[in-house]
Amino acid sequence: MTPSGIITLSSDFGLSDPYVAMMKGVILSINPSAVLIDLAHMIKAGSVSQAAALIHETFVFYPAGTVHLVVVDPGVGSGRRPLAVQAGGHFFVGPDNGLFWPVIERDPEASLVHLRESRFFLPDVSRTFHGREIFAPVAAHLSMGVALERMGTKIDDPVRLSLPELRVTGDTLTGQIVRVDNFGNLVTNITAGQLWLFLGSGPFRIVVGNFEILKISGTYADGEQGEPLALINSSNVLEIAVNLGRASEYIGVRDEEIVGTPVRVIRA
Amino acid sequence: MTPSGIITLSSDFGLSDPYVAMMKGVILSINPSAVLIDLAHMIKAGSVSQAAALIHETFVFYPAGTVHLVVVDPGVGSGRRPLAVQAGGHFFVGPDNGLFWPVIERDPEASLVHLRESRFFLPDVSRTFHGREIFAPVAAHLSMGVALERMGTKIDDPVRLSLPELRVTGDTLTGQIVRVDNFGNLVTNITAGQLWLFLGSGPFRIVVGNFEILKISGTYADGEQGEPLALINSSNVLEIAVNLGRASEYIGVRDEEIVGTPVRVIRA
Amino acid sequence: MTPSGIITLSSDFGLSDPYVAMMKGVILSINPSAVLIDLAHMIKAGSVSQAAALIHETFVFYPAGTVHLVVVDPGVGSGRRPLAVQAGGHFFVGPDNGLFWPVIERDPEASLVHLRESRFFLPDVSRTFHGREIFAPVAAHLSMGVALERMGTKIDDPVRLSLPELRVTGDTLTGQIVRVDNFGNLVTNITAGQLWLFLGSGPFRIVVGNFEILKISGTYADGEQGEPLALINSSNVLEIAVNLGRASEYIGVRDEEIVGTPVRVIRA
Repeated sequence: MTPSGIITLSSDFGLSDPYVAMMKGVILSINPSAVLIDLAHMIKAGSVSQAAALIHETFVFYPAGTVHLVVVDPGVGSGRRPLAVQAGGHFFVGPDNGLFWPVIERDPEASLVHLRESRFFLPDVSRTFHGREIFAPVAAHLSMGVALERMGTKIDDPVRLSLPELRVTGDTLTGQIVRVDNFGNLVTNITAGQLWLFLGSGPFRIVVGNFEILKISGTYADGEQGEPLALINSSNVLEIAVNLGRASEYIGVRDEEIVGTPVRVIRA
Repeated sequence: MTPSGIITLSSDFGLSDPYVAMMKGVILSINPSAVLIDLAHMIKAGSVSQAAALIHETFVFYPAGTVHLVVVDPGVGSGRRPLAVQAGGHFFVGPDNGLFWPVIERDPEASLVHLRESRFFLPDVSRTFHGREIFAPVAAHLSMGVALERMGTKIDDPVRLSLPELRVTGDTLTGQIVRVDNFGNLVTNITAGQLWLFLGSGPFRIVVGNFEILKISGTYADGEQGEPLALINSSNVLEIAVNLGRASEYIGVRDEEIVGTPVRVIRA
Repeated sequence: MTPSGIITLSSDFGLSDPYVAMMKGVILSINPSAVLIDLAHMIKAGSVSQAAALIHETFVFYPAGTVHLVVVDPGVGSGRRPLAVQAGGHFFVGPDNGLFWPVIERDPEASLVHLRESRFFLPDVSRTFHGREIFAPVAAHLSMGVALERMGTKIDDPVRLSLPELRVTGDTLTGQIVRVDNFGNLVTNITAGQLWLFLGSGPFRIVVGNFEILKISGTYADGEQGEPLALINSSNVLEIAVNLGRASEYIGVRDEEIVGTPVRVIRA
């Protein structure tokens, strides 16, 4: 696979600490012509599932051969393996803690390498910042065309991510809210395909918090101001919104508890 | 107009969601050598007037031929037109909701195009994310030299932005606070030109919240610590500040109500 | 020194205002091929010491010849000198207020220039935004190979930064917490070298807030969940953390008072 020269960076480092800038410096010291793009650094500290969802939702919009560096690494310095993956036409670099499972499980040809070749690392590897000392330099070398296989040993038992699954009981399909976006919209884990397969063409209602919604709208501007609505969003999953308002403020659930709130789709 | 190869990105998407990174991926997939610069993504959700002011204040510092992609789009999916503009030596791409009015009204030669040529869009256009599917790819094509006219049909009736205007009553010029910056400084909508035209050379006082200020200072470091002061800021408008303090905390107005607070300049 | 073509940007401008984007536009208008990397813009308003620490900790990860533009400038428009520095194989540009002292004091060969040659500035220099009008254009010219000496007059009396120092009284070494990172970890001003020199090989305890810690751990994952631990972090200084928790929430000190809290290392 020919690298695109682009490296995206995602982490839970936030925007106040110098850690992201250190990783960028390491990359540019190895590959001065790398194109660096921040994907997200406001991931909740240690939230492997949030990072996994973000990278899986986003990587397809990048050119084939892009390297995606993801450092959400609560187990740094413990036994977890450092990992590089070639899957779906892209490269992924980060800890083996489930971050890349959604990408790996969809590509039967995925190659996974346990990173062991220290000549592709910084000379001194601390036990607390592998993002800088292992993952950033490996990403830089991948972006220059170094073959994945040369970086370590192949593995086929990556850590899997257990994501919340949908349940069907009688006439009810139950999913949950997995993310609140910047507009207060509530992103669920129910894909359009799953929804229509379950519903067919009959009437239904969607119950979540204190909302009851009876149809799927086409856009945020449908319906009255302040009215809750359901739509298939641009990532092709069911989303709950309020026209010209923040659904997160109307749903009747405390902020800290919104993620995880059940979303019930009921055939009438 | 020759493109500079630079694309600036502004939005109300914040920094936690993957939407900005998706737009960047779309752009780089079309124009791998585009130079992407974030202008601002913390614009208040849906605030067309804030976005319009930011882009108007900033674009002039970029090389001619830069493309400015601005996605503050509360009407996405409704009837509002997607728009590209050539004005002031730059390109602007976004929804036709007033975002580019301050730029358009200052350039009698401005060209405006209703974006209709779907071959310059992503293949699938959803009803909820035109930033990714229409505006980002159009920005990429403009940055590669595709002529604006080829992207749709010319229009001359863009949506105008109604900004708060100055009022003069007797010896009082009344404007308002339009922005609080990161230092707590209060940016007004009174330009230096308007101020001096109104004041001439006589004495005056400026009254805003519980501040009364009797002169125009040259810099933030003028006056005593904690003293309110007025100055002409680097964007050439009247600004209210407090030396070594946050004016927003001293003005005696609740945070949510500061923007919109009247600023009265009174000839003594 | 050959420039790397990279310019890092640090400031206390936050992420809502257009000031950073204005500086980037100015740089790209002068050097269209400059590679711009944000180091940090969430520095506390006016905190020269925080900015000085961040840049000193980070610049070494960048290629030699990189230009580091740092605008934390509470004295803008007053008498403070605009400064450019060549030290440690890198360039630094910003106000002469102590920002670069940690870099300068470690390089006996450091060259310092009081920026006076206005042909390397923007044509109009306001009294309120030298970041845009002096420092950004100077950074751009340095990144293109203009010699430092041509930009002004040499000086050798830069403003020094007085950082909190360590104290040794009997069997106690006292430092302090200087930063809380995004994970709630407490970064101190005690380097690994100072710690081991003081401790030798005997037993000891570290007392900070309501924590008492009896050993140095290798990584964040050491110890029980919720247990406070001390480690030498990736920047080689003593850091206080809590396994799978935020040390800042357990230490028993109010948020605003954590920075500055004494850290006592006591030989048992």
